[in-house]
Amino acid sequence: MKQQREGLLLVVSGPAGVGKGTLDKALMDRNSKIKMSVSTTTRAPRPGEIEGVHYFFKTEEEFKAMVDRGEFLEYMHVFGSNYYGTPRSFVEQQLSHGFDVILEIDVQGAMKVKQAFPNAVLIFITAPSMSEIKSRLIGRGTETMEQVEKRFATAFEEVKMIPHYDYVIVNDVVDVAVHRMEAILEAERCRVSRSSELLESIQDIEGGK
Amino acid sequence: MKQQREGLLLVVSGPAGVGKGTLDKALMDRNSKIKMSVSTTTRAPRPGEIEGVHYFFKTEEEFKAMVDRGEFLEYMHVFGSNYYGTPRSFVEQQLSHGFDVILEIDVQGAMKVKQAFPNAVLIFITAPSMSEIKSRLIGRGTETMEQVEKRFATAFEEVKMIPHYDYVIVNDVVDVAVHRMEAILEAERCRVSRSSELLESIQDIEGGK
Repeated sequence: MKQQREGLLLVVSGPAGVGKGTLDKALMDRNSKIKMSVSTTTRAPRPGEIEGVHYFFKTEEEFKAMVDRGEFLEYMHVFGSNYYGTPRSFVEQQLSHGFDVILEIDVQGAMKVKQAFPNAVLIFITAPSMSEIKSRLIGRGTETMEQVEKRFATAFEEVKMIPHYDYVIVNDVVDVAVHRMEAILEAERCRVSRSSELLESIQDIEGGK
Repeated sequence: MKQQREGLLLVVSGPAGVGKGTLDKALMDRNSKIKMSVSTTTRAPRPGEIEGVHYFFKTEEEFKAMVDRGEFLEYMHVFGSNYYGTPRSFVEQQLSHGFDVILEIDVQGAMKVKQAFPNAVLIFITAPSMSEIKSRLIGRGTETMEQVEKRFATAFEEVKMIPHYDYVIVNDVVDVAVHRMEAILEAERCRVSRSSELLESIQDIEGGK
């Protein structure tokens, strides 16, 4: 009998510019059993986007029916814009096949996922300080100063939500931060609260499998 | 500002013969910032035993005075035998210097430590099954069959206490098990519940230290 090997759902949040995407990618490069969650959206596919790889593409009608059937771990709809959601079935399928699933999502979405899926592990990625977050936003050079200010205000609100997360990682050196994510996955697999199967098997006087 | 660097108190329990000592030693060999807790006892020093390294040696009177002053995280006294206890001051000193401290202790002691020191991380080490625990006890060849039966009965009671622990590690392959202990330490350092200093520092708009 092995330690827990059903996958873990890893919810990753953090302010824009702290390097969440870089960490997720590095984590997947180093671990073949980790996948990104695939979202469902009502927006049209862009050239090169593949159904089931980049998104699950649905009409608004289909999307709303999925909402009604409770098929999303969370979803959002910006007024006058498209719907985006995290389909529960895709996540659960990957987990049951032993894949860990990363869901990169904002703090509001993360809180909804935690409610719908209490077993999820919530990680908040941050820079060492708010001023560092600001420098990184400016350093990206992709936004106007007004946009930077707006993103910074959002970041300030996001950081206030850290107490609702399980773990916080300061992304200072990418390798160190990725190693911490790996350690969290490994440790969570040893959690007693996730090991009911293992506990039964140990107590099996015949020795289990 | 770095992640949490005050040390962690690691409470390690598990049935006789599952290899707790081997794991603790391997963990310390690989990490210079981990130390074993040093117990206080009323028994006389044996040749070669050094005060403060193997034990803190006290008279029964001194020991009882320490009990009265609440200076132990836990202690035990086998009737007609010696006292053994875990001095809180030693543990706290090491932790404040950034050392992680391992306390290898039985399940009753572990429960007392958890009460006295809620920040402790409780790890239960086990073999894959009860029958494997039995084979390992017999395999040691150091006990009579009667003693083995007695230890096995104890093991059976101990395993029932796993739900009170934070983590359970199956010691199948030593390297894998040690790696899991290291992962638990690293993950626990990222726990939001241990990161109050970090959180303050992030929110410091001036950028912290």
